[in-house]
Amino acid sequence: MARELPVLEEILSANDRVARENRRLLDRHGVVAVNVMAAPGAGKTSLILATIAALDRRLRVGVVEGDVAGRVDADKIATTGMPVVQINTGGGCHLDAPQVAGALERLPLDQIDLLFIENVGNLICPTGFDLGEHRKVLIAHLPEGDDKPIKYPGMFTAVDALVLNKTDLAPYVDFCLAAFQEAFRALNPRAPLFQLSCKTGEGLDAWVAWLEGQG
Amino acid sequence: MARELPVLEEILSANDRVARENRRLLDRHGVVAVNVMAAPGAGKTSLILATIAALDRRLRVGVVEGDVAGRVDADKIATTGMPVVQINTGGGCHLDAPQVAGALERLPLDQIDLLFIENVGNLICPTGFDLGEHRKVLIAHLPEGDDKPIKYPGMFTAVDALVLNKTDLAPYVDFCLAAFQEAFRALNPRAPLFQLSCKTGEGLDAWVAWLEGQG
Repeated sequence: MARELPVLEEILSANDRVARENRRLLDRHGVVAVNVMAAPGAGKTSLILATIAALDRRLRVGVVEGDVAGRVDADKIATTGMPVVQINTGGGCHLDAPQVAGALERLPLDQIDLLFIENVGNLICPTGFDLGEHRKVLIAHLPEGDDKPIKYPGMFTAVDALVLNKTDLAPYVDFCLAAFQEAFRALNPRAPLFQLSCKTGEGLDAWVAWLEGQG
Repeated sequence: MARELPVLEEILSANDRVARENRRLLDRHGVVAVNVMAAPGAGKTSLILATIAALDRRLRVGVVEGDVAGRVDADKIATTGMPVVQINTGGGCHLDAPQVAGALERLPLDQIDLLFIENVGNLICPTGFDLGEHRKVLIAHLPEGDDKPIKYPGMFTAVDALVLNKTDLAPYVDFCLAAFQEAFRALNPRAPLFQLSCKTGEGLDAWVAWLEGQG
């Protein structure tokens, strides 16, 4: 697509304008928005569900679910009683700010402290599009391997926090934590790294404490 | 990006022209090319390595490795002695036909029977770009969950064969095989599904036999 740079730049700046409006709207309502990005199956919805449970209503959570198709994830979130809006991109490989603007209109922003925007499962394209969020979070998981920072440097560089999920699988997969950390730190020296398991709950406390500090 | 349809269509048809030339070139040299697609960390390189070992030189294999950045995978393939070319897309979320055309120029096509083209880790964009391959193969893996056909229908619909990798992790992850199969079959009634573990080698035989039949 990069062959048509003028067109691409125009679309990007249109996106940025709407992202800025989204951020202003969220700020006016005192909502902190977190853009949750990851490869397919890393545990984005699982982390949101586990976080909602761990927060135990100390923060009021809202969720925007982005998927190419289906509403599997929105249905899971709805069981918690938290407000959720599903966006289907219909083939699009990332969320954009206008899609999120449409979702924000359908959410009770005055009743939300923390908004998770679950992006489409993709380690490449989502990072190029500001949605108006305040923090970008990436979820990696042990079964996808320790070489992902090397292969997807843009994503690992851009994020404000990194969650390494599925630590419960450590005995069963080949994953060198030292190599992963070294590759990540070469790209991103400052973002905190939270090792946790959404399945067992181990390590969730530090992640939730960080989230609570972002207000 | 879809807002600029005329530009997109022009790029796609330019891609298709080069893809057709790639296919003609491969046909002239008697090479069968397989476009290997998957989410990050599903085991694309692991499957290619396990297949090279299982083929035991009955077919001469060549590999094109596509990644956003790095040459981790090409280095792994090179240890087998098979010819390999690394493509770095530099942010691009899929391979395209011109990139593959450049790689084909650097491969000894007369000494290759089976060419694996390992696409960028992404369940969305790669399926929109014909590379000149003869078969599209998708690798899913147990840890990414059983709902992926519902969320990424385009990919699961397009493929000629589906590999379900990491069956060795079945005792440790929540994955309903029946739900996965049902969702896949609703999209793609005919493509064979190979359940296997690149780690243990279990189930590789049927996959390799299918590959050997594609000549």
